[in-house]
Order: sequence, then C-alpha cells, then structure tokens
Amino acid sequence: TANKRLLVLPGDGIGPEVMREVRRVIDWMDRRRHVSFALEEGLVGGAALEAQGSPCPDVTVERALAADAVLFGSVGGPKWDSLPFDKRPELGILRLRKELGLFANLRPALVLEPLVDASSLKPDVVRGLDLMIVRESTGGIYFGEPRGVETMPNGKRRGVDTEVYTEDEIARVARVAFELARKRTGKMTSVEKANVMQSGRLWRAVVSEIGAAEFPDVQLSHMYADNCAMQLCLRPKQFDVILASNIFGDLLSDLAAAATGSLGMLPSATLGAPDASGRRHALYEPIHGSAPDIAGKGIANPCAQLLSFAMLLRWSFGMEEDAAMIEAAVEKVLAGGLRTADIMGPGTARVGTSVMGDAILREL
Amino acid sequence: TANKRLLVLPGDGIGPEVMREVRRVIDWMDRRRHVSFALEEGLVGGAALEAQGSPCPDVTVERALAADAVLFGSVGGPKWDSLPFDKRPELGILRLRKELGLFANLRPALVLEPLVDASSLKPDVVRGLDLMIVRESTGGIYFGEPRGVETMPNGKRRGVDTEVYTEDEIARVARVAFELARKRTGKMTSVEKANVMQSGRLWRAVVSEIGAAEFPDVQLSHMYADNCAMQLCLRPKQFDVILASNIFGDLLSDLAAAATGSLGMLPSATLGAPDASGRRHALYEPIHGSAPDIAGKGIANPCAQLLSFAMLLRWSFGMEEDAAMIEAAVEKVLAGGLRTADIMGPGTARVGTSVMGDAILREL
Ligand SMILES: CC(C)[C@H](C(=O)O)[C@@H](O)C(=O)O
Ligand SMILES: CC(C)[C@H](C(=O)O)[C@@H](O)C(=O)O
Repeated sequence: TANKRLLVLPGDGIGPEVMREVRRVIDWMDRRRHVSFALEEGLVGGAALEAQGSPCPDVTVERALAADAVLFGSVGGPKWDSLPFDKRPELGILRLRKELGLFANLRPALVLEPLVDASSLKPDVVRGLDLMIVRESTGGIYFGEPRGVETMPNGKRRGVDTEVYTEDEIARVARVAFELARKRTGKMTSVEKANVMQSGRLWRAVVSEIGAAEFPDVQLSHMYADNCAMQLCLRPKQFDVILASNIFGDLLSDLAAAATGSLGMLPSATLGAPDASGRRHALYEPIHGSAPDIAGKGIANPCAQLLSFAMLLRWSFGMEEDAAMIEAAVEKVLAGGLRTADIMGPGTARVGTSVMGDAILREL
Repeated sequence: TANKRLLVLPGDGIGPEVMREVRRVIDWMDRRRHVSFALEEGLVGGAALEAQGSPCPDVTVERALAADAVLFGSVGGPKWDSLPFDKRPELGILRLRKELGLFANLRPALVLEPLVDASSLKPDVVRGLDLMIVRESTGGIYFGEPRGVETMPNGKRRGVDTEVYTEDEIARVARVAFELARKRTGKMTSVEKANVMQSGRLWRAVVSEIGAAEFPDVQLSHMYADNCAMQLCLRPKQFDVILASNIFGDLLSDLAAAATGSLGMLPSATLGAPDASGRRHALYEPIHGSAPDIAGKGIANPCAQLLSFAMLLRWSFGMEEDAAMIEAAVEKVLAGGLRTADIMGPGTARVGTSVMGDAILREL
C-alpha cells in the first residue's frame, strides 16, 4: 500500500531536528508494520527563501497539492524578522493554508496525567483537560480585502484590514466543529464578538442555524471572545469543542495550549473540504514554533511533531490503530519519567531530542 | 471646592448595589475630609432603555460631556440579550467612549497579597503581579467602516467589519502607554499581529517611531497577540505596560484580569485627550460586568467599583492621597480576612456587599 503520498516540510529552527525523530518512526513502521509511504521532502519558510527565493515556492505548493497529507515542521527565525511581508517565512504556512483550501484548523489542548504539574495553572484546574479548538483558517482578517497601508491626503498613514465572512465559510467550518462535538461529549461553544462585530453577528446566526437544522443533538452555546479568553484561564475544563474565527482562534488556541503547560507536546491538523471521493487536503504541524533559541542544540521536544504525525495517520489515512499506538508510546515514556527540558518537573530525568526519540521507539 | 462635577451611572445588574457603597464613601469624604462633589446620577444600559428608550440617551451623553469625570457601573443582562444591535445595553458604554473621545482604556491587573490564592494560576506565577494594559478604545474594528451584514448577488449573506487605524490614533494611545511605562518600571510591550495584519504593521512602525523619538528611556518590545495571550498565562509577571488595539486589548485585558483571579477587585479608567487647560474627559468602571446571576442578592463585591472611584480621584482630580487611602483601606480589610463570595478562600470570612462596605468605611 505505497500510495500514501506524504510530503514532509521540516522548515526552520527546531523543525528539522524534531522531524528526524518522526522519520525514525516512519522507518520503523515500514520495517515492522509493513506500512510504506511515498515520502517526499520539500522546502518551506526561511529554508525555502534561502534556497529558492520564496518562503513558499510554487514547487512546494504543487507537491503539497499532489500529496495525500503534508507533515509540516515550523518556520521563522530572527534572521528573517525584518523582511518585507511577502518574503517572511510565515507566508509559507499562510500560503499553504490558502492554496490547499485548509479552512479548518484543529487544535487539541490536552493535559496528560504525567504532565499535570507542567502547567502554570493549578493542578485541579487542568487535570484531565481535553478540549479541541476548531479555528477557521482561510478567511477573516487574515485574507480580507481591502487591506494595506496607504497615505491619506493629509500625508498621514492609515492601515486597513478587513474581517469578512460569508455564510458558506462559516457553515463549513461550523460543520467540522459540530461533527467533532458529536463524536466527543456533544458540547460546543461558538465564539465571536456579536455584541460589537457585524461578522460576529452573522457568525452567531449561521452557527445557530446549522446547529438547529443539522446537529440538534449537539448542545450549542455562544460566548464572547473576551469572556472565552477569561474562562480558558479560570475554568478551562468547562469546554469541549470551541469554534472560532481565524483571528480569535489564533489567540484562543495559543492560550489553551499555554494553559496545558506543555507546548512541546501539542499537535494540530488543518483540513480542507473532502472531494467527491472523500479525499481532502490536510496539513499537520506541531503548535510550537521554530524556537530559534534552542535550535541545533539537540534539546527540543520531538513529541508534538510525532503526535502531529499520529493525527495525520488518523485523519488522512484512517490508521486509527497506528495513531493510538504512537500516542500510547509517548504517554508511557512520559509516565516513565523522561522529559525534555521544556516539560521538566521534580523527580523526572532530563533527556535530549534523540534520547526521547529512542525511548518512544523502544516503547513501540 | 465644589466644582468636581461627577456623573454617576450605576447601570444594570449589580451596578446599583456596588455603587451604593461608593456613595457611602463619598458621603464620608464630604463629612470627614471636606471634599464635596457636584454629583449627578444618570441612566445608562438596560435601565436607560426601559426608562428612556435608548441604552445611551442623549441626555446622558450631554451630562457626561459636562462632567469632569464619569463613574460607570455596569450594563447588560439576559433580558436585553436578543435586542437588535442599536438597542443593546452595551451600546451605553460604546457610545460614551466614542462621544467623549475616550481613546485610552487603562486596565490594571494587580494581585494583592491576601488574594494570591484566589487565582487559578499557581501562587508563584501570580504573586506580586502588577501590570497595566493600555487598550485603544475608540478605533479599530469596533467602529471601522464599511461594516454590516449584506446579501450578495447569489442570495447568501456576508458579514464585514473593518479594522482601521491612522497613525495619529496609534500615536496618541502609544504616548499614554509610554508615559505610564516611564512612571512605572520603564518597560513596555506593544502587541499586534504585524505578521498577518496591515494595520498591525503600521501599529508596530508608529509605536517604534514614537518610542525612538520621544521615549528613548522606555524599553520597548513588540509581541504578537497570540504569543501575548500565551505569555499572560505562562509568565504574566514578565510584563509591565502592555499596549494593544481595541480588539486585542479587549481579549488580553480580560485574560490578564482572569489571571489575577480576582475579577471583583479590578477597576479601569478610560481617558480622553487633555484640552488646552489640561482637562480631559474620563470614565471609570469596574471590569466585572453586570453579573445578572447574583444581582439583587446583596453578595456582589463592591471593591472594584470603589477602586474605580479611587482611580477617578487620582486621574481626574489629582487627589492622590485620598485615592491611596481608599486603596489601603480595601487592602487592610482583605488582610483582615473578610471576603465577598467571589474571592473566598480557606480561612476567610464570607460577607455581603454592605458588610464589606461597612468594613472599608471603618478602615477609613
Ligand atoms: C505564523 C502565523 C502567521 C500563524 C498565524 O497567525 O496563523 C501562527 O500564529 C499560527 O497560529 O499558525
Ligand atoms: C460590553 C462590550 C461592548 C465591551 C467591549 O467589547 O469593549 C466590554 O467587553 C469591555 O471590554 O468593556
């Protein structure tokens, strides 16, 4: 079954080193479980900019379009921080989302029992936390027109962005969230600022309509984005699935991740619409960035990248068993007391990237 | 000195009951410290809607314009939740901000030693926390045009909001933040999404220019809004002054408030530009909402409203000594172990709104 076309894009910073550990797991799957992937590796971010003059070269987009799934590392670094907009490494991920139509960004925030103490929140507040943020990721203020910085007649500058959502854009991402809620605890919270924003008013109306018409079994509630930020800090366990726009989802998903205290553990998936044959574009990436401060030191946590690969197996290849096996291996290694520096706690042993990888492979 | 024109707008929910405790302090100041205010009371929010047909009647705006300072309670409640946009109680505060030109919303997040344990964050993470968020409050996506929900030629709906900032709008609120940073620890973090938003790009540029030209002594750094949300949860004490747009400031200031764990304690000030004589419009309000679930039960915490009044004395009337006296009285009462329900902890005594007010008056 070698028609699992997988594009691997390690990117910048710690991307390549954590991806190396995933490659070892892929090799192991090939040898031991006779699963083989048609694997290609490509360039993105600063790495692509230096080699090919663009943070997201056309060849990378073409390969991503041809692949069944993309495993993305991370992009960016101080080296490229002062470049103009269209050269910045972040464009790598933004362009891929847009060109592949990856409109639903799934961001789980999960606290594994061995890591309860890693959180800055009290243990009781986060123990057992397991929520999923569904963030719209090809619309809203990230792409809306008009946008730009212009000079007004009086000679002063003015910066403009447009938050715009059509009802179809809202409906399709809402359906992804509702489906997930149905499979989980049946509870969903839709977030906006309907008290201030017009697009928020439409967001609330459309989500309510879809809910009533197609998901009457899901318990839907609405919350303002400022209150949601507050509640994620006060009582994160009240949530199951949270649905939000691109920009609110950006802040809220990072906040939820921070609440877990284990950023180096969290994967994400970004999905497109299924075509007639059920095939959908999808990209998987850890939520940690390129972490330039620790890149090349061999101390980065490979778990988030590996768990992103597990999400990929589950969502893109239907390999639930293999996904669960990888997740269980990671959890066992943590329960055994091994930790990379980012998730260290009292009574645990600090190891580097590859020793962590070794231990996970041994578990497998 | 009876020319301290003060407009009191209790509003809805717990607004009137916590305002009652402030009125007692005002009476005490009159009797004991011979400070008298020319005090008027007005209607806003649902209360104004019911009495006068608008959540922010013209007469309220006129009185606010004529006053030296406005002490605002809180607005809103489930009763008015399904009203159309232009009738909603929230319009009360939005219209006042706009008509009075209150562009700088100051939101302190402070953890008093007796309340360290009230936070959902670990004591070490929040002990001694003392930061100030300066939120732009008359611009951005809250007011930008075009905005609205329209029907497209294909019959589908589309919601639009516009995030727009001119360099003057950015500069004036940045100056407020820089001034504050200068008086505090000299550190300021400006927040935007310059990696994604054009207005964010301008925001970063203008703040950098003002900083370099006028506040070279302030240590300025820039942070993306998603990262700031994360950092407020992970290590809130890294911040001193945070500067943000209206919408990012909305989320981040509520998050910072949640991090303190004592929402019922936090005041805020919203300031306009000083005129030639140095007089500026200003409105002070607790950050907690109208809390309809506990309204009328006599259990609401009056501290935030009272501390808002202390901010008013400091910022609008230059009465530093009286402001500090009120703040000290509140802190002493808490140190003595009295708590309203919202900030209860082990070993403390639960009291209602008026007993808390009594205790503070006794301290004074
Ligand atoms: C890198 C950046 C453009 C991106 C975003 O804002 O979407 C990131 O923060 C994310 O959440 O994936
Ligand atoms: C009530 C609402 C319109 C308001 C806002 O979004 O500005 C509130 O959340 C605030 O922060 O004062």
